[in-house]
Amino acid sequence: MDIKAVDRYIEDNLETSISELSELLSQPSVAAQNVGIEECAEMVASKLKARGFDVRIMPTGGSPVVFGERKGRSDKTLIAYDHYDVQPPEPLDLWDSPAFEPSVRDGRLYARGAADNKGNFIERLYAIDAILAAEGELPCNVKFIVEGEEEIGSVHLEPFIRENQELLSGDVCVWEIGGVDHEGVPIQQVGLRGICYVELRSKTANQDIHSGLGGSIFPNAAWRLVWALATLKDKDENILLPGFYEDVIPPTAREKELLAQQPDMNEYYQEKFDLSGFLKGIKDPLALAIEGVYEPTCTICGLTSGYQGEGSKTVLPAEARAKVDFRLVPNQTPEKVLAQLRTHLDSHGFKDIEIIDLGGNPPAKTDPDHPAVKLAVKAAEDVYEKPTRVIPMIGGSGPNFMFQKYLGVPIISSGAGDAESRAHAPNESISLDLYVKGAKHFARILMLMGQD
Amino acid sequence: MDIKAVDRYIEDNLETSISELSELLSQPSVAAQNVGIEECAEMVASKLKARGFDVRIMPTGGSPVVFGERKGRSDKTLIAYDHYDVQPPEPLDLWDSPAFEPSVRDGRLYARGAADNKGNFIERLYAIDAILAAEGELPCNVKFIVEGEEEIGSVHLEPFIRENQELLSGDVCVWEIGGVDHEGVPIQQVGLRGICYVELRSKTANQDIHSGLGGSIFPNAAWRLVWALATLKDKDENILLPGFYEDVIPPTAREKELLAQQPDMNEYYQEKFDLSGFLKGIKDPLALAIEGVYEPTCTICGLTSGYQGEGSKTVLPAEARAKVDFRLVPNQTPEKVLAQLRTHLDSHGFKDIEIIDLGGNPPAKTDPDHPAVKLAVKAAEDVYEKPTRVIPMIGGSGPNFMFQKYLGVPIISSGAGDAESRAHAPNESISLDLYVKGAKHFARILMLMGQD
Repeated sequence: MDIKAVDRYIEDNLETSISELSELLSQPSVAAQNVGIEECAEMVASKLKARGFDVRIMPTGGSPVVFGERKGRSDKTLIAYDHYDVQPPEPLDLWDSPAFEPSVRDGRLYARGAADNKGNFIERLYAIDAILAAEGELPCNVKFIVEGEEEIGSVHLEPFIRENQELLSGDVCVWEIGGVDHEGVPIQQVGLRGICYVELRSKTANQDIHSGLGGSIFPNAAWRLVWALATLKDKDENILLPGFYEDVIPPTAREKELLAQQPDMNEYYQEKFDLSGFLKGIKDPLALAIEGVYEPTCTICGLTSGYQGEGSKTVLPAEARAKVDFRLVPNQTPEKVLAQLRTHLDSHGFKDIEIIDLGGNPPAKTDPDHPAVKLAVKAAEDVYEKPTRVIPMIGGSGPNFMFQKYLGVPIISSGAGDAESRAHAPNESISLDLYVKGAKHFARILMLMGQD
Repeated sequence: MDIKAVDRYIEDNLETSISELSELLSQPSVAAQNVGIEECAEMVASKLKARGFDVRIMPTGGSPVVFGERKGRSDKTLIAYDHYDVQPPEPLDLWDSPAFEPSVRDGRLYARGAADNKGNFIERLYAIDAILAAEGELPCNVKFIVEGEEEIGSVHLEPFIRENQELLSGDVCVWEIGGVDHEGVPIQQVGLRGICYVELRSKTANQDIHSGLGGSIFPNAAWRLVWALATLKDKDENILLPGFYEDVIPPTAREKELLAQQPDMNEYYQEKFDLSGFLKGIKDPLALAIEGVYEPTCTICGLTSGYQGEGSKTVLPAEARAKVDFRLVPNQTPEKVLAQLRTHLDSHGFKDIEIIDLGGNPPAKTDPDHPAVKLAVKAAEDVYEKPTRVIPMIGGSGPNFMFQKYLGVPIISSGAGDAESRAHAPNESISLDLYVKGAKHFARILMLMGQD
């Protein structure tokens, strides 16, 4: 493969690719709010078709999966896993430019989904365009699995993959995320924590009531919720669900060795996020790295009850809700955590607190020394000009376990993300320079797959 | 005074008065959100001027006070205390008709402020119109003090009253609220609990962060707030601030005797609000009545943090806020409670939780056997055709202590409120029938003041 011609095409066509990406980013597709899903799936399908892929928009019971397949020279098959749904854009007032109006400033493209993960999807098509322009064919078979519910826990993906194992089968899966760390060093992220996401609801009356009337005699939904939440985790970060830590297994020696090669994130995080310090007073870089990904969590992601505007309103809230996510480490499962949560609330006198299951995944990881990981590392060599760091596990979550369980594929990473990407937060963005590098990296992965 | 002519005028002019009230209700005037305050003060002033009052819009440093005075036959002076500000209309989606578009349905007028307290203000003008039409003059002097910050704790009223004692002086003060209880029995409410309203704020980072990244290592504002709140009050409703109960004095024997004459509210409250029961398992009617007003409270009025929309968003919130009101009983003061709250949070490891003081009042009460209370009871006799219940203290709060401290006046009540009024909640309303009765009652109070 003439990699120089591929690189030249990529360098010469950035504007065209960013313009195509901007079109996709302008289409809201918030799975949590069921906004723009069908329209975005159609757009993704048409983009794959334009590259000669056989495309199907496949129903799942929720957002459809867009599946696209194109044969290549070798009989090896690369699977690209992406998602066209994005996180909700709220809080809107913290965006410097509107979330769904892509805007380029100082070499970065800002929009919801720019980093997570529409940018990586279009970047992969950009690499494919370059290869097709230079070679006329792909070096290996490529299958795209582009789902529309990643940001809400991939709630319908598991049966879809289980039931379509033959159609979806392949040799290696490139995960939706990838890029460089805050030092600009390329990374291979080969494991993901699991997740169990719930909403806890308290309802104590049929309407909000004047707090002067009911304050000392009526139950208060906000108090019920606060008391219930306070029993879930103590101030020392111990999660108090019965048996919560039972299935936790610590990182292997090899995983610790890899984590020890990571940069010290202490000062970086403190400055970037203006933190007063880390939980449990952790300062040692390796301890911070281990704690950050091998420790399960119980995070309050949101609270809502009663009056939330300016100034005062003397009201006794009838309802209160909390969004809570548990990040899970090997070998925890969301099913078990859900059951533990119900048992815990019941035994602490909170049978009245309703649990809404908003989806989950168990954790999963690829062997950091797998040949596919080595291939992805090799593909990065002359693109980033720095040796890749292999990260055995990251703090985030995703449906990687399904790909490993049903398709038996190792998982590698490639993409345009960096430490400034603000995935899930206002002002999400990607660097245009890293977007170009990511396309070159993906092109090389295809090339090496073809030679394999 | 020809009371029959007065009554006839009132009966014949309901539509005109409701139309005038609707105009006032259509003008939003939310002090908490600083919406429409000046416009509403102007409207109130013009309505008093139209009745021949000498009117001044007096600055206070916050919302202005509208003061109006008109001389009458006798040298006695009745003070009417009202407020033109209203509670925020949120949550908007629970209103059957828009909060600031008054709507009459089934004999009730719905709008924010209909009951609390624009309705009572216009009702009093309606009575004055009737007296002026029948008699050509007022039986006694009348002074209106109409403030614009009652719903945010009357934050600028105390210095205003202290500095204008001579201007504002009088013999009796008719409070902003009044009407009938849920059995249609007229009530005289002569005491109010105090209040200390605060916002508690936690801030742990400069931006919301992906919960996968920070969940196990970064501080979480929502958790900090939940843990801090949980230390303020235990599940058995004990408020845990140091010395909180020190100044609490129990009701007198006479106050208990009056409370024992109140109807049993147990079933009524449970059905109206669909409650599962009362706090502390209270069932006895007198115990419920005493607990409801002679017990200080710590009420969470609102919670806000992180993602609050539909479905899931995996975010670690940078900020969290709670609105909390403490209802105070004799002899607690808001100043002391604020100090206790700071001490408590500091000593429980929550120096990071900021306290925003959103205003307060100490509790105050008029002797239930004061001659002014007897006058108000007498004025109600032939209007409601049921004996009045004198309620020594209610659960709500207001600036009555200022009137007692600086003007030395007893406080009585009159108005159109009833058990369906939903003050502070969506679908606030008044009964048109009780609006007519309230006007007749107010006219009789003026008449008896003139004879006194």
